[in-house]
Amino acid sequence: MAETETLSLDEIETLAFDALVAAGTRPESARALAKATAETEADGISSHGMAYVPIYCEHVQCGKVVGDAVPVVDRPKPGLIRVDAANGFAHPAISAGFDLLFPLAREQGIAALAIHNSYNCGVLGVHTRAIAEAGLLGIGFTNAPASIAPVGARQPIVGTNPFSIAAPDANGAPSILIDQSASVIAKSEIMKRSREGLPIPEGWALGPDGQPTTDPAIALKGSMAPSGGYKGVGIALLVELMAAAMTGATLGVHASPFSGTAGGPPATGQFFIAIDPAATSGGQFTDRLATLVAEMRDRPGAHIPGEGRASARRKALKGGVAVNSATLAKVRAIRDGQA
Amino acid sequence: MAETETLSLDEIETLAFDALVAAGTRPESARALAKATAETEADGISSHGMAYVPIYCEHVQCGKVVGDAVPVVDRPKPGLIRVDAANGFAHPAISAGFDLLFPLAREQGIAALAIHNSYNCGVLGVHTRAIAEAGLLGIGFTNAPASIAPVGARQPIVGTNPFSIAAPDANGAPSILIDQSASVIAKSEIMKRSREGLPIPEGWALGPDGQPTTDPAIALKGSMAPSGGYKGVGIALLVELMAAAMTGATLGVHASPFSGTAGGPPATGQFFIAIDPAATSGGQFTDRLATLVAEMRDRPGAHIPGEGRASARRKALKGGVAVNSATLAKVRAIRDGQA
Repeated sequence: MAETETLSLDEIETLAFDALVAAGTRPESARALAKATAETEADGISSHGMAYVPIYCEHVQCGKVVGDAVPVVDRPKPGLIRVDAANGFAHPAISAGFDLLFPLAREQGIAALAIHNSYNCGVLGVHTRAIAEAGLLGIGFTNAPASIAPVGARQPIVGTNPFSIAAPDANGAPSILIDQSASVIAKSEIMKRSREGLPIPEGWALGPDGQPTTDPAIALKGSMAPSGGYKGVGIALLVELMAAAMTGATLGVHASPFSGTAGGPPATGQFFIAIDPAATSGGQFTDRLATLVAEMRDRPGAHIPGEGRASARRKALKGGVAVNSATLAKVRAIRDGQA
Repeated sequence: MAETETLSLDEIETLAFDALVAAGTRPESARALAKATAETEADGISSHGMAYVPIYCEHVQCGKVVGDAVPVVDRPKPGLIRVDAANGFAHPAISAGFDLLFPLAREQGIAALAIHNSYNCGVLGVHTRAIAEAGLLGIGFTNAPASIAPVGARQPIVGTNPFSIAAPDANGAPSILIDQSASVIAKSEIMKRSREGLPIPEGWALGPDGQPTTDPAIALKGSMAPSGGYKGVGIALLVELMAAAMTGATLGVHASPFSGTAGGPPATGQFFIAIDPAATSGGQFTDRLATLVAEMRDRPGAHIPGEGRASARRKALKGGVAVNSATLAKVRAIRDGQA
């Protein structure tokens, strides 16, 4: 068991902010990223919370992310917002876009935010949750460097490309929050096994020859297995169309890796849609959603997507979050200019 | 090999129209349905083309569909169209909605069409293709009576719920068209095996005890296996949120079956989103899409979703479509008032 230290969500946000600024991130950008870090820890997803802050800082320092980039916001049509993240973090671009997206979606009934030239956006569901908290149904897509091959081929063409949907209850709490990638498993799991010299289960990945492999090193040269075979490839392509083609961002097949310091900015993209559910449903949405959730609760053992995160968040708001001590030491060293 | 007769697409449309009207369908509604029948045959999906016309006619006659229903169109917000299909066919509701959706999406950049109280819409990709042919990116969702259980439970709660996305090239041809359900296999395949007394492969379905089964009769009392496990359930829930909760339609868990004559109108729903890709991408969409398709073509053996349908369509436009003779005899008998 790794040693941990329990921090409040405010302490997490402040520490992340200070480290990111010390590493050369513009304060407005660091604020959006630090807030998402605290929310990700609150959701119980420690792999993408404080543990990522040292990587973010390193990526500012090596130029994979432009720390002082200022997002450029455009409104090409009444229902559309387009943001050039200028090779900075996705978070400030999303934040600037959401400021316009929410009132626009209420006014128009539906509005979209297309972001290009951005870095990865962390946990996608953190952003769709924010749309739901504004009382709107939120859908999000984000693309990633290629790691899944098309059906019938061996070479990767699309990323593990997640989508997310968050459906707000009457109080704007996301009572269903789906956030899933197109692959059987996260690529980071295979990288972890590779570092640890452990085999991977069959079904996670394919080698460069297109055949299943249990060797993580061979898997990393090959491709990730799509979840549900060709249907997983379909999801990855759906996301690629939305997050890259529809935004004018870099396709996964041409994007530099998110991991490591080489290759410069990945310049990938995100696409978000916000919809006023009361307007589309003639006022029936809240009732329908509550019924759907109640029906699931009635089925013994049924898992409701998003409930795990909601429960972790309730706990975190009350008692803070246990964060890995070694991670905290790293982040504090960056904050104090000692890294 | 079943005997077939080759018909032109116009002949298919005319025959379907005449039979539907003879069975009591309002001409405007029959027109939309007959057009989709011809397009479905052109796409090479014979299971959902002319073969469905006798079922449509039977469903008008038994009251599962209201043949003379007139869709009621509303525009609750500048970017939204809402249609009450009035328990008639989905096709005329979609058609009436699309007439407004396309100009609206061009003007607003994004627009949505929410349909409730409708029957099933046949092949979803026929409708998203129409959005793409208008030069817009089209996304569609349609829900169905419950047949997939939530993760951890045994009783079905959501349908095999497909989604579809169609991405237009520079000429409005859908160069990528994805159209996939949330289950490993279509429920109709299991019904077919049940009628034929044949076993089903393991992995297609689960019995009422939640355990895998190869007996189609047991499978029909249980649930359909979601594609990719919990991720397939996630897709089915995404579609349920969009097509039922967001439209105010009947949830899959409360909807009457699409098959058979019992239970009255299913009153399910559809949701379509149309987006101007040139506006969201700063003019980059056409190039990005062409590059994505070209990269797939470069990968030996790669399957590009939608290419099969496009190739079938080219053939059909030139040489017509071979339709099962027994099906044609049934449809002609309905047309001639002899069924």
